Amino acid sequence: MSGFDLPAYLADRRAAVDRALEAALPGEDVPPATVHQAMRYSLFAGGKRLRPILVIAGAEAVGGSLRQVLPTACALECIHTYSLIHDDLPAMDDDDFRRGRPTSHKAFGEAIAILAGDGLLTLAFRLIADNADTVPDPRALRDVVAEIADAAGTLGMVGGQVVDIESEGKQISAETLEYIHTHKTAALLRAALVSGARRGGATPAQLAAVRAAGGHLGLAFQIVDDILDVDGSLVELGKTAGSDQRKQKATYPEHHGLAASRVKAKTLIEDSKAALAPLGPGAEPIRVLADFVLERRS
Amino acid sequence: MSGFDLPAYLADRRAAVDRALEAALPGEDVPPATVHQAMRYSLFAGGKRLRPILVIAGAEAVGGSLRQVLPTACALECIHTYSLIHDDLPAMDDDDFRRGRPTSHKAFGEAIAILAGDGLLTLAFRLIADNADTVPDPRALRDVVAEIADAAGTLGMVGGQVVDIESEGKQISAETLEYIHTHKTAALLRAALVSGARRGGATPAQLAAVRAAGGHLGLAFQIVDDILDVDGSLVELGKTAGSDQRKQKATYPEHHGLAASRVKAKTLIEDSKAALAPLGPGAEPIRVLADFVLERRS
Repeated sequence: MSGFDLPAYLADRRAAVDRALEAALPGEDVPPATVHQAMRYSLFAGGKRLRPILVIAGAEAVGGSLRQVLPTACALECIHTYSLIHDDLPAMDDDDFRRGRPTSHKAFGEAIAILAGDGLLTLAFRLIADNADTVPDPRALRDVVAEIADAAGTLGMVGGQVVDIESEGKQISAETLEYIHTHKTAALLRAALVSGARRGGATPAQLAAVRAAGGHLGLAFQIVDDILDVDGSLVELGKTAGSDQRKQKATYPEHHGLAASRVKAKTLIEDSKAALAPLGPGAEPIRVLADFVLERRS
Repeated sequence: MSGFDLPAYLADRRAAVDRALEAALPGEDVPPATVHQAMRYSLFAGGKRLRPILVIAGAEAVGGSLRQVLPTACALECIHTYSLIHDDLPAMDDDDFRRGRPTSHKAFGEAIAILAGDGLLTLAFRLIADNADTVPDPRALRDVVAEIADAAGTLGMVGGQVVDIESEGKQISAETLEYIHTHKTAALLRAALVSGARRGGATPAQLAAVRAAGGHLGLAFQIVDDILDVDGSLVELGKTAGSDQRKQKATYPEHHGLAASRVKAKTLIEDSKAALAPLGPGAEPIRVLADFVLERRS
């Protein structure tokens, strides 16, 4: 599958996700309108839809279909978006810009931003349940809800944000930095891939392969993010350049140097692709996505 | 069943819920400890456990068991508690006290309070999925998740809070006040009763009866809350007396007068009990709970 057309693959899946999100979100005029406007403002802000695409790629890798997992794919984007809205709040990272536009609380005020996040998180679980018809038994639905809730909750993403917030301005160990990265970012990326595979009908061996691949890929993604934060610009990242450094947030390059960080990211992506070996050619989109995570410039 | 012993019923169910919540929540020393301490601080603050008890009573009314619905009962309390934590935030109602103790953000800071709420909401859906083994097919689990997510989201509780926040200090219509009350409070109380009945194996006719009863009971609960806010004291309510009035929040008595509010609450409770007629004697605990909602002093 050396001829795999990644741009076409991404554009196609992204369009499907955008259409499904458009249909899943209450319209901007549905009361109470403000919160629905705020949810849409952040959800349709030009995101890459990486998490939904990982859900889809996870399903396709084990013979599942896009249709089977589209609501779950949308749910992952809702959870990601809620986390960005809450992370940007004044009490948290206090960011004024995100993807080149004012953050939610800057555009809608803090109360609506908090509630838009709450609304997106709640909608996410509604969406996960939505395609129960495509799963054979209640344990499959339970396992996907549990997978995603664990990845998003205090033992996953929320927990990572707690430690991130509590580490600001402090000297932290490499272990703490890895805790933040694996929990705040990698956990949800891994859950995306695993949920897709689970919904797609993965065998236990396939699930284990995808879980390992997702963990490596997720950590690599965050290290590349840190590298881009040092290297990047406002235009490329859509947020204030070097904002992590300005806020004295620990980054991978700060702890390990820029060159070692690049090597680490590359190694993780290789590990991720190696873990996918048992899945054969069906996992080619995930492999190409893994390379994309490494080589992205934003 | 005139001899129904409500205090014993409440004490027994509340103890079961507390034990289950204790087991469901990560310990105070589980990293990241702060957020788990904050979640427990608010969750174990002497709440009446009304929502969990409604879940249980809903199940028992249709022949279901406590065991079947205990995780769902706990989930409802997690959602209720998250909503209190976020509602109390400075950007929202800016309350310093809740149940006689400092609010979450006063005790743990705003960032941890926001994240504790996020963590509780996420855990709630984990818990709902948890007892999938006790439901016969995936649609039953989907229906309960959908019921609760709809009641908790922007078309329910979050939506009610949006309109409540946006109405502060404004002259609002009786219709807007009713919107706030039915969405912010009644929706989740109704969902508690309906989810319990659904998990307990209710027939469509039983579900319809419980849904109607839950709607009336939920609105009555909020009207009584408003009456207590005018009548009550800090000791009874555990929050600053008359705080809704001080914040220029519209209340039912303000719109309709205290006497008419009492009549309205009483009528709603009678309607609620009338709606339960098709369920026969199994619904006696719900009927007694309905009277309790009307007669409570806190």
